Amino acid sequence: METLQIFKIGGNLMNDVELLNKFIGQWCLLPHKKILIHGGGKLLNELAEKLNLPQEMINGRRITNAETLKLTTMVYAGYLNKKIVAKIQSQGNTALGLSGADMNCISAHKRPLNDIDYGFVGDITTQNINVNIIEKLLQQSIIPVFSSITHNNQGQLFNTNADTIASTLACALASNFRVELIFCFDHKGVLKNIDNQDDIIPIITENDFQTLKKDNIVSKGMLPKLENAFKALKAGVHKVVLIHYQDIGSFQHQDRFCGTQLIV
Amino acid sequence: METLQIFKIGGNLMNDVELLNKFIGQWCLLPHKKILIHGGGKLLNELAEKLNLPQEMINGRRITNAETLKLTTMVYAGYLNKKIVAKIQSQGNTALGLSGADMNCISAHKRPLNDIDYGFVGDITTQNINVNIIEKLLQQSIIPVFSSITHNNQGQLFNTNADTIASTLACALASNFRVELIFCFDHKGVLKNIDNQDDIIPIITENDFQTLKKDNIVSKGMLPKLENAFKALKAGVHKVVLIHYQDIGSFQHQDRFCGTQLIV
Repeated sequence: METLQIFKIGGNLMNDVELLNKFIGQWCLLPHKKILIHGGGKLLNELAEKLNLPQEMINGRRITNAETLKLTTMVYAGYLNKKIVAKIQSQGNTALGLSGADMNCISAHKRPLNDIDYGFVGDITTQNINVNIIEKLLQQSIIPVFSSITHNNQGQLFNTNADTIASTLACALASNFRVELIFCFDHKGVLKNIDNQDDIIPIITENDFQTLKKDNIVSKGMLPKLENAFKALKAGVHKVVLIHYQDIGSFQHQDRFCGTQLIV
Repeated sequence: METLQIFKIGGNLMNDVELLNKFIGQWCLLPHKKILIHGGGKLLNELAEKLNLPQEMINGRRITNAETLKLTTMVYAGYLNKKIVAKIQSQGNTALGLSGADMNCISAHKRPLNDIDYGFVGDITTQNINVNIIEKLLQQSIIPVFSSITHNNQGQLFNTNADTIASTLACALASNFRVELIFCFDHKGVLKNIDNQDDIIPIITENDFQTLKKDNIVSKGMLPKLENAFKALKAGVHKVVLIHYQDIGSFQHQDRFCGTQLIV
């Protein structure tokens, strides 16, 4: 099977156009078929602050009312998505910026009201991924660039967690490609000690993961990321790696290992 | 040749989500292959005002500095584009929201500095239209929805006039389709008397146009719209019509004429 690399980018990379451009420049050199998934981050918070629209986060998830959804769609599907697409195009590649609504690539259902009302937040499963259309794009050497906006097929847009989109896409495409899922973020991998960027855990098995959770070494935003990642591996995803976005240049050199790899 | 209808929507339609949804619902019923082009309008001005970013218009064109380009990309390519796409999808169609950067559909060159520096405003000719890729989308029954954002193939996005995109697309596609170009705006057509919405001029020839210009009946924003429209007709576009967006429902009934038709 052909290799497909699915990259999720986030963290400070999304806050600095210079960094982002540099990253995309190096990323474009990677030889395999690829998909990029991005959220937003600080830019959305800055805009919301200027507009006096207080943002509320619960368990690392943004409470998305109608006004916040509007801003999210603007920043993610508009500004950042088109900036990234224009940069990829400038490197001589063909990129297509997408939300889940476009050609119904990714549908979603509103997160059910339990204790917390997350508002216009969409949850997804592999059933929501339009594998046919995404595969068709990849076969035409088009690079899909997904912002983390989805829809419900009834005209309603949703904000969906970008990590979740990345791992769900990876699972859904695992029968058609040899999928590698790569999270590019602000750390050099999963760290034993958060204050020491070089204290990387190179490999994490599921057993290790249980220990790391118990010892509180893995917590907060890293927990759902890793939980989804292990689910992805069990669903047939070939490889899951977490790297610092600055290490993207060395990522293609198989002889020089960087980041953390998860294995089952 | 197969008919292709290219619609440009603007005016108050872009300021009211309810109106826009109603319009899209009726528009989706039109039987021919179609393309939609939209700008933004009031929403951009409102956002700019809230952010204390003064907007300057010269000859009906927006001076687009870096911050305004950012907002334009957010509002046009993000919020409005994805809203429209989600609505079209909800009607059981396949829509793809695009900026000019996506798959290099529409490239542009920065408007040259003459007396006025328009900033990040991109000018286009038919050479800038990626006819192959747009035709491929149409052949797959995908409805392209263009926001009026273009790029220069070097990573720079531009703000481009939506009327110009519509007529340039029409010209570029005229050898492959029987193209009809339809401007949907706030008037029932070109009016003899701007205060009487029913005083529509049903047909305008080029000779009529010269007279209307001389008599100042056609002026301001209508001037470039009609000039481009006549250029389009001469370049092989089959039909150019200006209608009120509220008349979209009756537009498909050939027996009931509405709006103004331009002829050469």
